[in-house]
Amino acid sequence: MRILSSELKNHIGKEVTLLGRLYAARKMGGIGFAILQDRKGLVQAVFEQEINAKVGSIISLTGTVKEEKRSQTGVELAGRSISVIQAPVEDLPFDLSKKELNVDLPTLLDHRPLTLRHESVRSIFKIYDTVIGAYTEAMRGMDFTEIKTPKIMGAASEGGANFFTIDYFGTQAFLAQSPQFYKQFGAGVFERVFEVGPVFRAERHFTTRHVNEYVSLDGEMAFIESDEEVRETLEKALRHVFASVAEKNKDELALHKAELPLMPEKIPAMKLSEMRQIIKEKYGYDIPKDTDIDPQGEVHAGQYAKEKFNSDFIFLTHYPREHRPFYIMPDDENPKETKSFDLLFRGLEIATGAQRIHDYHKLVGSIKMYRLNPDDFAFYLEAFKYAMPPHGGWGMGSERIVYKLLGLSSVKEAILFPRDVKRLIP
Amino acid sequence: MRILSSELKNHIGKEVTLLGRLYAARKMGGIGFAILQDRKGLVQAVFEQEINAKVGSIISLTGTVKEEKRSQTGVELAGRSISVIQAPVEDLPFDLSKKELNVDLPTLLDHRPLTLRHESVRSIFKIYDTVIGAYTEAMRGMDFTEIKTPKIMGAASEGGANFFTIDYFGTQAFLAQSPQFYKQFGAGVFERVFEVGPVFRAERHFTTRHVNEYVSLDGEMAFIESDEEVRETLEKALRHVFASVAEKNKDELALHKAELPLMPEKIPAMKLSEMRQIIKEKYGYDIPKDTDIDPQGEVHAGQYAKEKFNSDFIFLTHYPREHRPFYIMPDDENPKETKSFDLLFRGLEIATGAQRIHDYHKLVGSIKMYRLNPDDFAFYLEAFKYAMPPHGGWGMGSERIVYKLLGLSSVKEAILFPRDVKRLIP
Repeated sequence: MRILSSELKNHIGKEVTLLGRLYAARKMGGIGFAILQDRKGLVQAVFEQEINAKVGSIISLTGTVKEEKRSQTGVELAGRSISVIQAPVEDLPFDLSKKELNVDLPTLLDHRPLTLRHESVRSIFKIYDTVIGAYTEAMRGMDFTEIKTPKIMGAASEGGANFFTIDYFGTQAFLAQSPQFYKQFGAGVFERVFEVGPVFRAERHFTTRHVNEYVSLDGEMAFIESDEEVRETLEKALRHVFASVAEKNKDELALHKAELPLMPEKIPAMKLSEMRQIIKEKYGYDIPKDTDIDPQGEVHAGQYAKEKFNSDFIFLTHYPREHRPFYIMPDDENPKETKSFDLLFRGLEIATGAQRIHDYHKLVGSIKMYRLNPDDFAFYLEAFKYAMPPHGGWGMGSERIVYKLLGLSSVKEAILFPRDVKRLIP
Repeated sequence: MRILSSELKNHIGKEVTLLGRLYAARKMGGIGFAILQDRKGLVQAVFEQEINAKVGSIISLTGTVKEEKRSQTGVELAGRSISVIQAPVEDLPFDLSKKELNVDLPTLLDHRPLTLRHESVRSIFKIYDTVIGAYTEAMRGMDFTEIKTPKIMGAASEGGANFFTIDYFGTQAFLAQSPQFYKQFGAGVFERVFEVGPVFRAERHFTTRHVNEYVSLDGEMAFIESDEEVRETLEKALRHVFASVAEKNKDELALHKAELPLMPEKIPAMKLSEMRQIIKEKYGYDIPKDTDIDPQGEVHAGQYAKEKFNSDFIFLTHYPREHRPFYIMPDDENPKETKSFDLLFRGLEIATGAQRIHDYHKLVGSIKMYRLNPDDFAFYLEAFKYAMPPHGGWGMGSERIVYKLLGLSSVKEAILFPRDVKRLIP
């Protein structure tokens, strides 16, 4: 009967069998050391002879469990036998047995099925698993209904930029850039909906924070009074996410020497225009006029949040209307600004949200104001023609959370098989 | 303060305010009846005058909670006032206030943002929410790690048929037909992985059980002895799914007059070849020679499972190798058959699974035997070159579960915004 490495402590003094990968092996004066990796982690076995198996092999290892204070898990095995279930055909092109996997990003990603086997790489996706699991748990706990919306679309919803096109039985179709319209329909029916699903952006970015396909954590909720309620709900979900990581991923955080984020009782919120002023005065950086905020500005905003509020998060609000899509609710007091926000985590935007326009006539007016044609949005407008409740929501990049939490070199490290302008394989 | 319809029983005798949609209204001798719909369901309010609001409006309704034995929820409201938050611009093209929504399938789908508002339609997706939530809960409970794999692929994995093609920055790419290769990589690293995600099939089907995009519930697990372990694990997940639906969706099941499935202590399993023989002898139906089993054969297999085993489910095993992809493990005893299975639910295939070939040389041999080129699978083979554990898994159509559970007319009824050969909007 197989025992998992996490169960060894319950079998001290007994002989057990483990299944896994021979993660590392070395010899020292006639003694052999084998480290086995199973889905729960690593365990060391000491043999009275050398290990007769190739590192990387899938093995069955039998031995007696001993207490061992110097071991991180508190146990090790007095090894009796190793039998090889499946051996590698060749030696690995790099050494996975070292504590740090010293490969550059292209190598890391080109050989992803192999590099993922390294404990420090694998641990990223144990945390990712917690993040998406905790997000759905939080959303269900707040009475949100999970929906799955189509990724193939007949109409490029927001004007046609940045969409990948598909040949759909001879017709041109598009890959969804966000579930925006569909989750709004959902909010009109279920009031509170969420989705965890891929989104696709045909953008020619070459940065550490962009990819062309990512997993968006979306939420949309009806009967709101303002976008502040949206921010509060998103904040609740995030608190649960980080509380879950704190509880479940101690080892993984330690492996990356990562600190849990600073999160005050309430995430601070500030108008974008005020933040621009502060960044100019305090950090001497002038955010370019043709943008709302640029990456350098976000870094400074993150710096300010930390210095002023002791917070790794900050909501920037009231984004100008000219930089937000047509369906965003303008602010009552200043129609050039919107009831919208971005959420920054350690100086990087991880979520964007807003209250939406829910009145049919206002929405038609806004489409026209953006020089778009209401006829192109007939299927979207139909929901509003027959009354929609006040509503708003957000989209959040799941991988960016892990990227910033662990301080990785690129968001691509937080994606199993990332897609960028040049990368389609593996 | 808003109260939800489900909370009314705790407020008997008190005045409360509900927010929602005016689902129906009628008058009878100077008395007005209003039915409000919120995310928890319907509640009736009785007014001493006619209702002065258009059906379909988003409203705020204030009234006093009264016990009412004849009402399904045990309560109704003595209405005091209705205020309209948002009124429809036009009258609806069909009547959503009737108990049955009498529209044909094209109308149902063309006006999806509206028809979803009908209680019987909405209830389908409350059950769908339970199904995917319970599936992930079951999988996490069995120590599976959730992964998210790319939907844009650089190589059409299994030979190129039935893939949608994308223009990817001037290069041809493909939409993933399944997460097959990626979940196998995952099993090589995390041992047990699952995914809930869209899959895309460029097939020109015009049936009640096919669509071109659906949400697949995938699982893949390492260190298996046989495909039987895969079947047992899938069965455990399914039991949890149906137990959750039984617990959470009593009202929704009742609305559809749907019976929970018959599921004996162990789902019966039978060789496909034996089932073919039985279908021929018992039901006089000869499954065409050029197929493993056809839809009519599946119906008879389902009939037999019910008559013989009192089961709504049956595993058919040992599918012939010529009808399964190259990576499926052939059977030791008869290499023309495979260690694979389909799971039928009420006479319809809902899942397909198998043990995979994990030996590098055998896999290369199988690729050649299928007249494919191993060079085209270099990124896939790399994982095997460096040793993979024995593994297997399944893919399951989430929407087909709901379709058969509720006895809907088409699987498209179980998809929020289905995509078929002709349907890309909404």
